[in-house]
Amino acid sequence: MAIVPGPNQYGKAEVRLVHVDRSTPVHRISDLTVSTALRGDFIAAHTAGDNSHVLTTDTQKNVVYAFAREGGIGEIEQFAIRLGRHFTSGHEWVTAARIEIEQSGWDRITADGRAHDHSFLRSGGGRRTTVVTVEADTVHVVSGLAGVVVLKTTGSEFRGFPRDRYTTLAETSDRILATEVTARWRYLGTGQATGGPDFGRLAAEIPRTLLETFAQVHSLALQQTLHRMGEAVLVRFPEVAEIRLSMPNKHHFLVDLAPFGLDNPDSVYLAADRPYGLIEGTVLRDDVPAAPAAWYGTPGFC
Amino acid sequence: MAIVPGPNQYGKAEVRLVHVDRSTPVHRISDLTVSTALRGDFIAAHTAGDNSHVLTTDTQKNVVYAFAREGGIGEIEQFAIRLGRHFTSGHEWVTAARIEIEQSGWDRITADGRAHDHSFLRSGGGRRTTVVTVEADTVHVVSGLAGVVVLKTTGSEFRGFPRDRYTTLAETSDRILATEVTARWRYLGTGQATGGPDFGRLAAEIPRTLLETFAQVHSLALQQTLHRMGEAVLVRFPEVAEIRLSMPNKHHFLVDLAPFGLDNPDSVYLAADRPYGLIEGTVLRDDVPAAPAAWYGTPGFC
Amino acid sequence: MAIVPGPNQYGKAEVRLVHVDRSTPVHRISDLTVSTALRGDFIAAHTAGDNSHVLTTDTQKNVVYAFAREGGIGEIEQFAIRLGRHFTSGHEWVTAARIEIEQSGWDRITADGRAHDHSFLRSGGGRRTTVVTVEADTVHVVSGLAGVVVLKTTGSEFRGFPRDRYTTLAETSDRILATEVTARWRYLGTGQATGGPDFGRLAAEIPRTLLETFAQVHSLALQQTLHRMGEAVLVRFPEVAEIRLSMPNKHHFLVDLAPFGLDNPDSVYLAADRPYGLIEGTVLRDDVPAAPAAWYGTPGFC
Amino acid sequence: MAIVPGPNQYGKAEVRLVHVDRSTPVHRISDLTVSTALRGDFIAAHTAGDNSHVLTTDTQKNVVYAFAREGGIGEIEQFAIRLGRHFTSGHEWVTAARIEIEQSGWDRITADGRAHDHSFLRSGGGRRTTVVTVEADTVHVVSGLAGVVVLKTTGSEFRGFPRDRYTTLAETSDRILATEVTARWRYLGTGQATGGPDFGRLAAEIPRTLLETFAQVHSLALQQTLHRMGEAVLVRFPEVAEIRLSMPNKHHFLVDLAPFGLDNPDSVYLAADRPYGLIEGTVLRDDVPAAPAAWYGTPGFC
Repeated sequence: MAIVPGPNQYGKAEVRLVHVDRSTPVHRISDLTVSTALRGDFIAAHTAGDNSHVLTTDTQKNVVYAFAREGGIGEIEQFAIRLGRHFTSGHEWVTAARIEIEQSGWDRITADGRAHDHSFLRSGGGRRTTVVTVEADTVHVVSGLAGVVVLKTTGSEFRGFPRDRYTTLAETSDRILATEVTARWRYLGTGQATGGPDFGRLAAEIPRTLLETFAQVHSLALQQTLHRMGEAVLVRFPEVAEIRLSMPNKHHFLVDLAPFGLDNPDSVYLAADRPYGLIEGTVLRDDVPAAPAAWYGTPGFC
Repeated sequence: MAIVPGPNQYGKAEVRLVHVDRSTPVHRISDLTVSTALRGDFIAAHTAGDNSHVLTTDTQKNVVYAFAREGGIGEIEQFAIRLGRHFTSGHEWVTAARIEIEQSGWDRITADGRAHDHSFLRSGGGRRTTVVTVEADTVHVVSGLAGVVVLKTTGSEFRGFPRDRYTTLAETSDRILATEVTARWRYLGTGQATGGPDFGRLAAEIPRTLLETFAQVHSLALQQTLHRMGEAVLVRFPEVAEIRLSMPNKHHFLVDLAPFGLDNPDSVYLAADRPYGLIEGTVLRDDVPAAPAAWYGTPGFC
Repeated sequence: MAIVPGPNQYGKAEVRLVHVDRSTPVHRISDLTVSTALRGDFIAAHTAGDNSHVLTTDTQKNVVYAFAREGGIGEIEQFAIRLGRHFTSGHEWVTAARIEIEQSGWDRITADGRAHDHSFLRSGGGRRTTVVTVEADTVHVVSGLAGVVVLKTTGSEFRGFPRDRYTTLAETSDRILATEVTARWRYLGTGQATGGPDFGRLAAEIPRTLLETFAQVHSLALQQTLHRMGEAVLVRFPEVAEIRLSMPNKHHFLVDLAPFGLDNPDSVYLAADRPYGLIEGTVLRDDVPAAPAAWYGTPGFC
Repeated sequence: MAIVPGPNQYGKAEVRLVHVDRSTPVHRISDLTVSTALRGDFIAAHTAGDNSHVLTTDTQKNVVYAFAREGGIGEIEQFAIRLGRHFTSGHEWVTAARIEIEQSGWDRITADGRAHDHSFLRSGGGRRTTVVTVEADTVHVVSGLAGVVVLKTTGSEFRGFPRDRYTTLAETSDRILATEVTARWRYLGTGQATGGPDFGRLAAEIPRTLLETFAQVHSLALQQTLHRMGEAVLVRFPEVAEIRLSMPNKHHFLVDLAPFGLDNPDSVYLAADRPYGLIEGTVLRDDVPAAPAAWYGTPGFC
């Protein structure tokens, strides 16, 4: 028996990069948080402190900034692919790179009735994300959104669940349903030099589909809502192989106002912080091979 | 010499209340975080543990929920005034109440091209706030906004500052200016039973004025931008006696790309977390008496 | 009537400074977060963007780092006084400086049974704070502690409170009492060039007194516990003029286990996040003049 | 091709439980945050909103509180195993349960020179964690610690790394090394009804070994420090099959004081927030089979 190093990776986390495109007076802004991680042969660094293979995390940060200048950003998936290809092509011992980017949105401020050229307001509606894994000739792209808080005031039931000694919850045919959606979907056809998914269009349309489905589905369970949301994405977007959703059930409890001589006809709620239900699920095409490498290193449930 | 209790207050902080108005199929939602604080004669509780004057914080919480049911919410200023009047009228030893409310906004989700009746998306653009202080017949209302993150990619200089032994900063005629605006403005005419400011309209229009001014003013210093923003509010809204603004200077540094053989013509920035500049200022009408009681207990700079 | 600038201040917030004293092989570390703010005549910057009086916040940051090298840190109160005197002595238009420092503690790691020379573990037990205000010849020092989370499992009652229509809380003669103490105390005798309080010793002993009193007082109300804690400090430390305490009541609710056929004899509790009670109070010497300038700009309740 | 549900799980997250053992006047406190997740046949809930298999998350929460009363807590691993076995034994369609517990430590307050019976101070030094996965007869236990912030002021070099076009970092033979350790180690022999690891003793000794190794190893790279820390655990504790460590490199940069005519002999540092290096690695025994199911659902890097 020996004690040996197992799987490992390293990189620079949360490089804060803002890129301004001033090619016209109507400025465009990209606000990114970029994390890079390299995998490969780094055994000697672990066992002997031999850094001859350790492309420093400082260098990785420099590459992020330099590439933003050299080629601009474009869609975050494209920027991440460029970074991943760079790191896996320069040094033979680097066999894979994982690039994670989170993008904060900015809306233009309205002034004198029109969108301002160069003044912006941080937008709501969550953040766009991507995780790109480049390994040899393979490029995996898992894009997503985070921080999308949604709520419906009706159109949500929860009934028919099993009861045992520890069950006290009452069935309900009308409750508030609230959650913060984290979604990650894996694109097909991302390895080619040309073609491939239209990342920009899909980054706009898939969230719209998720929101719209959340709004329109009459909910019988958060599980069912989650599944319908993912299913709608797969039905509408052939570019997507699978989607994973993590949706906390942010409980809103009806306050008991009877001690004060008041009824409470689904009107006054206590919004609770903790605990919360946590529902996680995948929707996938049954004819597409799984791609565990695409998800390696991404927090999740499988 | 004696050791004695000095100023004190107590209450329930951060009561999370969601109210749904179902009077029509188009539901309306109010999402509030309410904090109450009472002042008055609570000496015996402090010195002897005699609680006969201590209206419990649990009771204060109950009042918040019950009043939401009994009278609905309306504008948060009105709800806070109702709460404050209740607490100061029921028990002779309670001489003042401070009610702070923060409101999270919800936009309707668009589905099938129209705003959905009962499905919502947490909105960006910051949170609406109010601090109401009721003391005898006086009602102070200090409303505001928080969490509004704005940025302009040009139209901002910083020059002409003094230099001493410790000054290394270069002057600049073009920089990114970014900040997170916290504003609080005090309303006039809030003591009357009827009339008074149109809180709902002003809560929409004042933030718009602040944003628009931020966008349009060519900035010579964040101080000047702050002053112009406050000034614009006082010019446009006679209902406002004074406004206080707290604006961190969220630094965006141009990255030095010369080591990589690249220029950086105001294109690639590092967004820094800490430290940050912090600019705080007041704009006021010089003929309106100060109202320190309106600000008592509110974090600030004066 | 005119619209004019009112009170204002500006500075650099949250400068992260770590100083290592290597004068012996047993290294000593000071881990500070320093915020500076200047007050004085900055009208022209506000009204006209004229920066000729604006000692930049970047320069303020430089001073923090340079002074750490030039004179070391010593006690944080001393470091803050040096900074404050510098800022108010160099430029006639700077009339006051407020320096706030928060210090994170580090314990030595134990290795081979003894405290290591140069390896440290971030300590618990809260952070040491100071707010120093220098204005002309006056130096105010308000020191404190933050983030001290304490709990007692018995020795706490809450009874005898008034009941009204909205009161549902039961009286209790045995509850968990838990809070996170924020304390700030103002020192006497801080203006002299020599002498004055022994800041280092007091920074160790006052928190000890607060904790010990929390532990030993049988609590009839959190207000009474707060008062006794402050009183103990004033009784023991003549250097302290007044103390302000902010103590959230972090509720621990007994879980109702009756539905599962179980009793719950003060055994199983739900620790709630929000809402929480918030009790704030002052203890002071009745023969010491108030010093509002010492507290200007510090979040509080009066 | 069909669109189908893939892997999923659900449960109650972050149940806040405080248990007081009053069996003697010297009270003992367990402060836990418990998250449960069930896996099995929940297809009908996802596809049809049929909840007949959905043991509600509310019930899961109730079980946590009831079991704390019925059997006490003991070591968190034992409590988690009891919960996991309950959930997987009661309903045939529940095939696996994942129980995650995080424990906050409390030290006794010292009063009158001795440890107080029932008054506590939240301790530093991080939080104890466990993730228990029960699947049929298999019980996996992955315990760990989180939030342990350590720093050494010398005894750390970083040299010998490769240089390319984007490398600007200078080599250093003396730097501050600081990190926040997250460690998770998998125990052997956890499936038996009796015997198995002495969880309580190991939860004290393994962190001590990690800290001591961090202190004593002369660091050539954070990778090497990480490996040596994990190796020391495997060498000393035969109960441990493998250990995974995640260690951000919390950069401390020497401040350039030359513009102020000052040197900086490893004395004054800027502690940076972002970006940070992130080093993640595993140390394992090469004769122990991997156990991916033990890690399923736990954020990590493999």
